[in-house]
Amino acid sequence: MSDAKPSENIVWQKTTVGRSERARVSGQRGAVLWFTGLSGSGKSTVANAVETRLNELGRMTYLLDGDNVRSGLCADLTFSDADRQENIRRVAHVSKLFWDANLLTLVSFISPFRAERRLARELVGGDFIEVFVDAPLEVCESRDVKGLYKKARAGQIPAFTGISSPYEAPEHPEIHLRTGEESLEQSVDRVLAWLRDKGYISAG
Amino acid sequence: MSDAKPSENIVWQKTTVGRSERARVSGQRGAVLWFTGLSGSGKSTVANAVETRLNELGRMTYLLDGDNVRSGLCADLTFSDADRQENIRRVAHVSKLFWDANLLTLVSFISPFRAERRLARELVGGDFIEVFVDAPLEVCESRDVKGLYKKARAGQIPAFTGISSPYEAPEHPEIHLRTGEESLEQSVDRVLAWLRDKGYISAG
Repeated sequence: MSDAKPSENIVWQKTTVGRSERARVSGQRGAVLWFTGLSGSGKSTVANAVETRLNELGRMTYLLDGDNVRSGLCADLTFSDADRQENIRRVAHVSKLFWDANLLTLVSFISPFRAERRLARELVGGDFIEVFVDAPLEVCESRDVKGLYKKARAGQIPAFTGISSPYEAPEHPEIHLRTGEESLEQSVDRVLAWLRDKGYISAG
Repeated sequence: MSDAKPSENIVWQKTTVGRSERARVSGQRGAVLWFTGLSGSGKSTVANAVETRLNELGRMTYLLDGDNVRSGLCADLTFSDADRQENIRRVAHVSKLFWDANLLTLVSFISPFRAERRLARELVGGDFIEVFVDAPLEVCESRDVKGLYKKARAGQIPAFTGISSPYEAPEHPEIHLRTGEESLEQSVDRVLAWLRDKGYISAG
């Protein structure tokens, strides 16, 4: 094939098995729960706990973690601005594929910029649920599970979100968790309640 | 974060819900069926028919099509050698994620080079099933569903597999279909029989 942009010789392959057929098999419809927040805000902890609860309810789930994806699909990317953007683009496309497969997909990802979260929302299309995992910087820094804040303060990590690079808080997240004030149990309950309310999981 | 390679400050996030928990919910274990063959060999047709059959059996599936992925996740890539390689790498990683989610994942992709299929097999790890969709070039060219062979013969598509770029046939594919000789029904039956034989779907 040529080096021309790929669109030229491509025919979209209409698959015989679509979302509705898959939904009949799985008995559920997909959604993308996009957890955003500072490092240490509890994104992964809450996402994991929500996934566990959904699994106990017999729901099919998958968790795409910023870190996990970085070690595979996005292993070629650095943390430069351009590569962070590309990272988001790929994760958004992959979560769209999982949404299309009707899985309840959880994405845990600092994603500090409004523009990148807007891009993810646009790429995914429907059923994009922005979950703002909100905790004060002091709380996140005092947790410092991975020791990253210490490194950032020491100037060993340039452009670290919250320290030397901004975190742009979501303006209209579908779900706003305050993990500095509420317990993990409460956060999880609130996500589950939202999913029930919107019909992603049954009320039973 | 810095421009340093990402591995430095990354801790693999052990998710609470693993393959076994997901398998309990879905009642199945994942696999990657990697369909390879010339353009026009019937890869997508067979993959679609296999997916339909699996769906009728209540199995959860997902089909990653070379063309479909090209319009999203890999929309930034051209058909240069380096970009084709990157395309394969991404598709392999994504199919591994779907495998990890316990879906029967079908990948339909010319993937003409042994090295790239070996790479895909290595990246996916277990449960990689190479399906060689084998039809003589004359048969594929006479079908020419997308009119690509005509364009390639006219020199409008350089490095077109089978015409001006080699197709390296699989040496030890798990499944070898001869779509120039057998009917679609027969091909599908043989894939299903293989999956039953190996325990990916129940014999019932």
